[in-house]
Amino acid sequence: MAEYILHKVDGRAKRGTFKTVHGDIETPVFMNVATVGAIKGAVSTDDLHQIDTQVVLSNTYHLHVRTGDETIKELGGLHKFMVWDKPILTDSGGFQVFSLADLRKIKEEGVTFRSHIDGHKIFMGPEESMQIQSNLGSTIAMAFDECPNALAEYDYVKNSVARTYRWLVRCKKKMAELNAREDTVNKNQCLFGINQGAIYEDLRIENARRISELDLDGYAVGGLAVGESHEQMYHILDVVVPYLPQNKPTYLMGVGTPQNILEAVDRGIDFFDCVYPSRNGRHGHVYTNKGKRNLFNARYEKDMRPIEEGCHCPACRTYSRAYIHHLLKAKEMLGLRLCVLHNLYFYNHLMEQIRNAIDAGEYATFKKNKLDELQEVSREEK
Amino acid sequence: MAEYILHKVDGRAKRGTFKTVHGDIETPVFMNVATVGAIKGAVSTDDLHQIDTQVVLSNTYHLHVRTGDETIKELGGLHKFMVWDKPILTDSGGFQVFSLADLRKIKEEGVTFRSHIDGHKIFMGPEESMQIQSNLGSTIAMAFDECPNALAEYDYVKNSVARTYRWLVRCKKKMAELNAREDTVNKNQCLFGINQGAIYEDLRIENARRISELDLDGYAVGGLAVGESHEQMYHILDVVVPYLPQNKPTYLMGVGTPQNILEAVDRGIDFFDCVYPSRNGRHGHVYTNKGKRNLFNARYEKDMRPIEEGCHCPACRTYSRAYIHHLLKAKEMLGLRLCVLHNLYFYNHLMEQIRNAIDAGEYATFKKNKLDELQEVSREEK
Repeated sequence: MAEYILHKVDGRAKRGTFKTVHGDIETPVFMNVATVGAIKGAVSTDDLHQIDTQVVLSNTYHLHVRTGDETIKELGGLHKFMVWDKPILTDSGGFQVFSLADLRKIKEEGVTFRSHIDGHKIFMGPEESMQIQSNLGSTIAMAFDECPNALAEYDYVKNSVARTYRWLVRCKKKMAELNAREDTVNKNQCLFGINQGAIYEDLRIENARRISELDLDGYAVGGLAVGESHEQMYHILDVVVPYLPQNKPTYLMGVGTPQNILEAVDRGIDFFDCVYPSRNGRHGHVYTNKGKRNLFNARYEKDMRPIEEGCHCPACRTYSRAYIHHLLKAKEMLGLRLCVLHNLYFYNHLMEQIRNAIDAGEYATFKKNKLDELQEVSREEK
Repeated sequence: MAEYILHKVDGRAKRGTFKTVHGDIETPVFMNVATVGAIKGAVSTDDLHQIDTQVVLSNTYHLHVRTGDETIKELGGLHKFMVWDKPILTDSGGFQVFSLADLRKIKEEGVTFRSHIDGHKIFMGPEESMQIQSNLGSTIAMAFDECPNALAEYDYVKNSVARTYRWLVRCKKKMAELNAREDTVNKNQCLFGINQGAIYEDLRIENARRISELDLDGYAVGGLAVGESHEQMYHILDVVVPYLPQNKPTYLMGVGTPQNILEAVDRGIDFFDCVYPSRNGRHGHVYTNKGKRNLFNARYEKDMRPIEEGCHCPACRTYSRAYIHHLLKAKEMLGLRLCVLHNLYFYNHLMEQIRNAIDAGEYATFKKNKLDELQEVSREEK
C-alpha cells in the first residue's frame, strides 16, 4: 500500500505527499489528461517534464478498445509504452462506458456495451476493469463504478450506489489477486474507491462511511460536475469530505476550472483532473493569472508580449501572442500545441502556488486574492 | 553581398559555406519548409534546433495574404516573429500565384490574381515581390518568376523565360533600392535568380548565361519536378548547371526525394527544399536509411524498436514504432509530430553525410551505396 504523508492542514486544506512506486506526488496536484496515452495537442512526455507535470491520467476504456491493454502489457505496460516514468492514474472505464458507448445494459455482474469505434460487443464489470488496469500497470487504478447524473432521482441513485459499493468490494478483492501474480506489470498498483450519491447528502455520507472502512489507498468523490451547480458541488464536498479518511488522498474527479480547484482544495481535496486546459488550449483559449484570453481575438494581432508576462512555460519563454494568434488563424497545429503547453503549465503551476500557500499557512488569503485576480481579463477583453 | 566559399569539388559535387548575416550555411543543405512561418506538424523553432535545421523556407504568398508582410515588418520581421535566428529563405510568391490563386492574369507588369482565402484581388510583380520579401526581412529573397509546366510548348516557354528575365532585372534593381533604405528589416538581404526553360536545353542554357551575368548572390534551377520524368530532370541539370557560376550557391527548387537529392548534388546543387518529409510525416510515412516505412502498417503494432535504430532524432531517442503506430491509429497529433521530426532530421542528417562524403572526396562511392541501401525496406514491407 502506498503511503500518504499529511504534512499540514490549513483550514480544511490538506498538504500531502503520496509516495508511490513511480515516485512521490506532492498534493494538492492536478493530473494532466493523456486519454489514449498522449496529451492531445501534440504534447510529448518530453514536453511534460518541461511543464512540471507530476501525474498523467489515462483512460482505460480508450486504451482497451484501441491497441488493447493486453498488447500494452505484452510491451511492458503503459509507462514503458508511452515513455513516462512518473505516476499514471487510470480511470476505471466506467465513466466512458456510461457516457460514450452505445446500447449499454447494466446488470449486477457489470455492463455490456458496444465499442464506439467498431461496434463490437464488450462486457466490463469490476473484475474486467481491474484486469485491464492491471494490464496497463498504472500507478493508481480507479474502482469500477456507475456515475449517475447528479440530478438523477433518489431511488435510482440509492440502488446505483449500493451496487457500486458491491462492485468496489469485488474490485478490492480482484486487485489484491492481480497484485500477487508473478507476471503483473505493477505489483504495487494502488486502488482508489469512489464515493457516489449524486446530490443526496444521506446517500453520500452513508457511502463515504462504508467505503472508508475498506481501507483503500485513496478516495475519490465522483459524480460531480455532471449537471449540478457549482454551489451544489461545493456543498456536497462540505458534507462528504469529513467522512473520508484524512490520512488518505482525496480526489475530485473531472474538476475543473481554477476557481473550482481553489474551492475544492479548501474543502480537503488532494487530486484533480480535467480536460479544460488541454481542450481550451486547442481552441486558442489560454489561462492567465488575470483570467482567460481568447488568442483568436484580433486584439492580439500585433501583441508581441508572451501569453503571460513572467510565465516560464515553453510557449511564453519564446513566443508572442501575435505569433500564436497568427498560427491559430492559419490553422497551424503548432498554435494549438503552444496554447495547450501554456495551459497545462498554468494549472501545474497554480497547484504549486496552492501547495506553497498551505505550507505557509496562508491558504485562505491566497485563495481570496487568486479568485479576485482571475476575474480581471474577462473585463479587459470586453 | 553574401560570400560563398567553395571548399571542395568532388566530381561535380560542391561543398561550400554560404556566409550570411544570419550565420553560415554549410552546403549541400536541405531547407525545412515553414510555409506560414511554422513547420506543419506542431514543430516549433525550439524543435528545429534539436534536429539540426540550418535554414527554413517560408512562403511569401501565404505570409502576404495572412497576417501580412507589413504587419510582420512592423513587429520586427519574420525572424523575430517566428523566433528563429538562423537563415530564412523566402520564395517569391510566384509559384503559389501560378498554382494556388484563382483567376490569374499575366501582363508585363506582373500578375493579377485573387486570394485563395477571401477572394480579394491582389497584384504582384517583381517590385511587389521584392517589397514583400524585404518587409519579411528574410536572409535570401527569390526573384519573381513564372514557372511554366516542364512540358509546356516551346514558344510559350520561350516568351515566358524572356519575360521572367526582364522581371529578374527589375527584381535586382528594386532589391538594391530596398536594401539601401533606412527602415529596412534586413539591409543585407540576398537575391537569388531563377533559371527557367522547362525541358528545352537551348532556352535553359541561354537563360543561364544571361542571368549569370547579373552577378546575383545565388542561382536556382526552377520549373523542374513539375511534370517531367526524373531522367529529364537529371538531364536538364547535366546541361544547365555548368552554365551557372561555380563560385555561387546553386538551388534546385522543390526537390525532392533522397534519391533526387543524391543525384542533384552529384550535378553541382547546393540548396534543396521540399515538402515531402513533412507531408509524408503527417501521413505516417517515415524515411529510414533502408527506405520508407508506413507506420500505419499493422506490422508495427508490437514493434518496440525506434523508427530507425541508431537515429538520434527526438522521436527515435525516446519513442517506439509501436507507440507511434498507436498514436497514428488514434489520430493523436503527437504521432504526426514525431514522424515529421524524424523525417526532417533524416533529411538534415542525410545532407550532413553528403557533406562529409564530399569533404572526404568519396562522394561517388557514398552515393552508390546510399542509393542501394534506400531500396531495402520497400522490399521488407511487402
